[in-house]
Amino acid sequence: MKTVRTRYGPGHCVFTVWAPGKDRMILHIVSPFDGEYEMEKDDEGYFSVRVETDKRPLRYYYKPGAERDYPDPASHYQPEGVHGPSEVVDHDAFRWTDQAWKGIPFEELVFYELHTGTFTPEGTFGAIIPRLGELAETGINAIELMPVSQFPGSRNWGYDGVYLYSVQNSYGGPDELKRLVDACHSKGIAVFLDVVYNHLGPEGNYFGRFGPYFTHHYRTPWGDALNYDGAWSDGVRDYFSDNALFWMEHYHIDGLRIDAIHTIIDNSAVHFWAMLSGRVAAWEKKLGRHLHLVAESDLNSPHVVKTPVFGGYGFRAQWLDDFHHALYVLLDPSGRERYYDFGAMKQLAKAYTDGFVLSGDFVKFRRKKYGASSAGIPGDRFVVFNQNHDQVGNRVDGKRLSLLTGFENLKVAAAAVMLAPYVPLLFMGEEYGDETPFWYFVDHSDPQLVRAVQEGRKKEFANLGFTHYPPDPQDMKTFRGSIIQWDKRHEGRHGILLRWHRELIRLRRGLAPLKNYSKQDVEVELLGEDGFVLLRKWRNERLICLFNLTCRELTYTFPRETKPGLKVLDSKDNRWMQEPLYEDRLLPESPQAGETVAILPFSVTVYHHRQEKGDTSGGPLSTDVADAW
Amino acid sequence: MKTVRTRYGPGHCVFTVWAPGKDRMILHIVSPFDGEYEMEKDDEGYFSVRVETDKRPLRYYYKPGAERDYPDPASHYQPEGVHGPSEVVDHDAFRWTDQAWKGIPFEELVFYELHTGTFTPEGTFGAIIPRLGELAETGINAIELMPVSQFPGSRNWGYDGVYLYSVQNSYGGPDELKRLVDACHSKGIAVFLDVVYNHLGPEGNYFGRFGPYFTHHYRTPWGDALNYDGAWSDGVRDYFSDNALFWMEHYHIDGLRIDAIHTIIDNSAVHFWAMLSGRVAAWEKKLGRHLHLVAESDLNSPHVVKTPVFGGYGFRAQWLDDFHHALYVLLDPSGRERYYDFGAMKQLAKAYTDGFVLSGDFVKFRRKKYGASSAGIPGDRFVVFNQNHDQVGNRVDGKRLSLLTGFENLKVAAAAVMLAPYVPLLFMGEEYGDETPFWYFVDHSDPQLVRAVQEGRKKEFANLGFTHYPPDPQDMKTFRGSIIQWDKRHEGRHGILLRWHRELIRLRRGLAPLKNYSKQDVEVELLGEDGFVLLRKWRNERLICLFNLTCRELTYTFPRETKPGLKVLDSKDNRWMQEPLYEDRLLPESPQAGETVAILPFSVTVYHHRQEKGDTSGGPLSTDVADAW
Repeated sequence: MKTVRTRYGPGHCVFTVWAPGKDRMILHIVSPFDGEYEMEKDDEGYFSVRVETDKRPLRYYYKPGAERDYPDPASHYQPEGVHGPSEVVDHDAFRWTDQAWKGIPFEELVFYELHTGTFTPEGTFGAIIPRLGELAETGINAIELMPVSQFPGSRNWGYDGVYLYSVQNSYGGPDELKRLVDACHSKGIAVFLDVVYNHLGPEGNYFGRFGPYFTHHYRTPWGDALNYDGAWSDGVRDYFSDNALFWMEHYHIDGLRIDAIHTIIDNSAVHFWAMLSGRVAAWEKKLGRHLHLVAESDLNSPHVVKTPVFGGYGFRAQWLDDFHHALYVLLDPSGRERYYDFGAMKQLAKAYTDGFVLSGDFVKFRRKKYGASSAGIPGDRFVVFNQNHDQVGNRVDGKRLSLLTGFENLKVAAAAVMLAPYVPLLFMGEEYGDETPFWYFVDHSDPQLVRAVQEGRKKEFANLGFTHYPPDPQDMKTFRGSIIQWDKRHEGRHGILLRWHRELIRLRRGLAPLKNYSKQDVEVELLGEDGFVLLRKWRNERLICLFNLTCRELTYTFPRETKPGLKVLDSKDNRWMQEPLYEDRLLPESPQAGETVAILPFSVTVYHHRQEKGDTSGGPLSTDVADAW
Repeated sequence: MKTVRTRYGPGHCVFTVWAPGKDRMILHIVSPFDGEYEMEKDDEGYFSVRVETDKRPLRYYYKPGAERDYPDPASHYQPEGVHGPSEVVDHDAFRWTDQAWKGIPFEELVFYELHTGTFTPEGTFGAIIPRLGELAETGINAIELMPVSQFPGSRNWGYDGVYLYSVQNSYGGPDELKRLVDACHSKGIAVFLDVVYNHLGPEGNYFGRFGPYFTHHYRTPWGDALNYDGAWSDGVRDYFSDNALFWMEHYHIDGLRIDAIHTIIDNSAVHFWAMLSGRVAAWEKKLGRHLHLVAESDLNSPHVVKTPVFGGYGFRAQWLDDFHHALYVLLDPSGRERYYDFGAMKQLAKAYTDGFVLSGDFVKFRRKKYGASSAGIPGDRFVVFNQNHDQVGNRVDGKRLSLLTGFENLKVAAAAVMLAPYVPLLFMGEEYGDETPFWYFVDHSDPQLVRAVQEGRKKEFANLGFTHYPPDPQDMKTFRGSIIQWDKRHEGRHGILLRWHRELIRLRRGLAPLKNYSKQDVEVELLGEDGFVLLRKWRNERLICLFNLTCRELTYTFPRETKPGLKVLDSKDNRWMQEPLYEDRLLPESPQAGETVAILPFSVTVYHHRQEKGDTSGGPLSTDVADAW
């Protein structure tokens, strides 16, 4: 890794920095002693120098063109923030205990998206550790940390990060992140990082002083695009692709969720994403454990998850926003104002069977024909969710789904995700229906920038037609008000939802049809505009999942040919109710073939049927399922 | 085709124009009568109106927003140039005689690139017709017209065209182009058009008054990019993809050479090129004749010619500039100043065996790693040439290869192209070694624009280190000086070169190994830095082509295993010499296996060998070859 060559050795330290357009570069060590060192440049534009010293840690700046002090773009630590000196990190010093860790196959993951600053009152990596046991008990086996690269100040979603190799100082820095990853692995939890390769934060961004990181050829929502394909772009491509491997090697990270991949424009013969996925595939073999790349993509293009041989980017999976939109507007009809291309039950059906709902037709929001079909692409190439930081945080009132639909529908929503032929993701606190808002917050030091963020945010909502706005992003209270209320997780309805999620994940792990990602075995039957039947199959097993998303009772007639099997889940069962329901209103435990039943409002019920060879009666549960129970 | 709906009907004429952001649109007929008509808008942003009249031809303007007169962006004819009124063309009126024409399979083509304005003193389509017989006799079966869409003034390469559906008035307009195509088909010649879908010319470009044809998201060498993927881009995509089909339907065009496809940025799920190639494939079936799309691409990406199933753009072929560069710098060593990443004989070998020479390594000219391998892609997916309008016209002195290398090497160069496993292209006049320069010329009416072009051109050459410049592009003499000297084609060395080309094309059509585009059957053996042996195979036949590109004699030993066969071509044969050579210096007609021979300087010699079953001796020529002779 060319970008990652600054490191300690016995009695010395080697420094390397890329600045192809500069004639001179001076290393300026500022702690624990002061000294300047002229660096030497190689053909590829990397400057380096070796300093004989055994003092550690070394803090330093670079002087591009021998002019002014700037932090190292590839700094591994910014102990004093984005404007302060960089610090060389000794990655060999950490004592890992996860030697036996081999990672987790992607299709087995249940994601938990987590913002380090607001997951605990302390807002540190260390404070997450005591909560891992309970997450694991719920069935969660992957946490996905919102970006942790050094951002300005101490409060940020993370998408303003600038020093991509540097772990946020206020979260605890490099060692504390390693402690967290090591602890996760000891509990069987994989760790994903959300990384941002499409722009750099607006504050502390001195990259332009070093090299041609940016290009005028393309514009992004954040200004000039990163230079992924122009002159001297190799150094830029190395900076970002090395970064992916860096986390995997030095922090034992299991996978990356890559932010907004559609905002990188790369007109090269080998697209950056194809290059990156190729490098990660090679490292997967080298490191001997599962490594995954997940894309956030706004393209609705099947190329994202196709392999490079088929002209794809080679991502293991991508977030399936269409699933969220299709489901959310059915749970909260006011959502149709924002997601006005959605609103029909058949769109949710298409989300289950095909993936992309918008796959080529005219889309009002985009004012153009948009997307291509993902039919036939296996379900484990998509990640689905009821909400993530984006949907919650970009609502004017920062509301989670728990405040947008009723308790009964929250159970239905969770089941809709967990019974889907996709890899599920929960947003921290969702598992117990946390009701804290998740606001947008920043902590910039430049007053002009603060004003720009405040006003930009208002304008964004004004453009959407709002006349009131979220609270001031720069205000400390906005950040504090977003810290989730973990302590309530066992109380009342929160406790029910927590157990409900655990139950859903148990079923997901135990029932063979739910582990089958082949889309050939997924069917949806609409019950008008109010509900639907999701059918999941695997060999001789089938699951019939009856969903009613509305306040109207629905009727359903089980097929005449085969027995419906045994009920394995019922959201109206008293175990999952705040107030008990008359049991005679529940769906039968073991309905007859051809029987017509009434599906209660806001409910989900699941039947499991196993057909023995030559036997068409509802068989016993499979061994797997028995284990799950 | 949505864009092509303006047409005459019995006793009426329907007008349609796309302007999604406008509230009003007025049709203003200016000839043969004057009248204004309010148009009606549909959901997709197309305005239309039906005018009851049987007067023809109708000339008109549109008034977007009911404000000012502008020509129709989708005009089929601009009889008075880019600023004048548009004219409705009655495409049904032309009497085609090519009903039996089925086109030509791509792999059989020999291209002839032709600039209508400078191919004849008249500079019209009509003037080309009398020359077709001789082109066909030479073996040329496809002319490729440099762009003919209406450009400003009467002199232009064509890349400043604005009204893409409109045929240049000074070339003879729509009917004369149809006459030319019909005449070509009657002579067995296919017609390709060079079309420009990456920008619109700077003069007479009123497209912005109608709709969002441009986007700020990407920049091109010509300014803001065309809007292929933003809001309302469907109308833009239709405008350009309909245009491709329009030529094929109304002008019986056989294929398009699409200019600089790499300068279109399209971040959609379905890339514009994949959409276009899909539409053309459908029309190929509909029209029942061969239709081809050829790309000019600066990407060195195999995706360009791969099918959309494999994530490709679906072009039938692309120009292989690397072949030109690799060959040209060996013929004219001063070319290394411009093509400084080229210069090694092994690069030419790679051009023959792989295609792209630059396929992933660092390229000085690009200042980055560039390209990807095209090894294994069949040869008929590439078009090769010794020169085209670009290389000649962008030399400071406008020189053709005929003035840059000697007569003997011109024969070698022609053979290097014609014996290559690729589809060949000649630049008008090349077949007889025309020595007229091909300058860059324009005929703008805006003095500011004229100055900008004049100065931009100088700056371009100054940046390349030149201290003298090509003549003034706006000067009529520059244009006149570029008209080729067709009358000299039979004189002296010109006549020899003409017959040499005819001979090469005959061999190409007759020898089975030369019709085999599989790269598995192509080998190159280097003879140091001075020459090479090109081996072409097909089943039991093989061709040994000995190339010496320098003034040094080379030695070559024929393989011991098989007989070398019979000589089928020798550039030193007196038929092809200006002055006779002692015959004893020629390579033997039928060399022995293992025999060592001396290859004369600046020469090409071809042996053909046919191995009978169980017989290793040089067999007789195949039937095909006999036919060719």
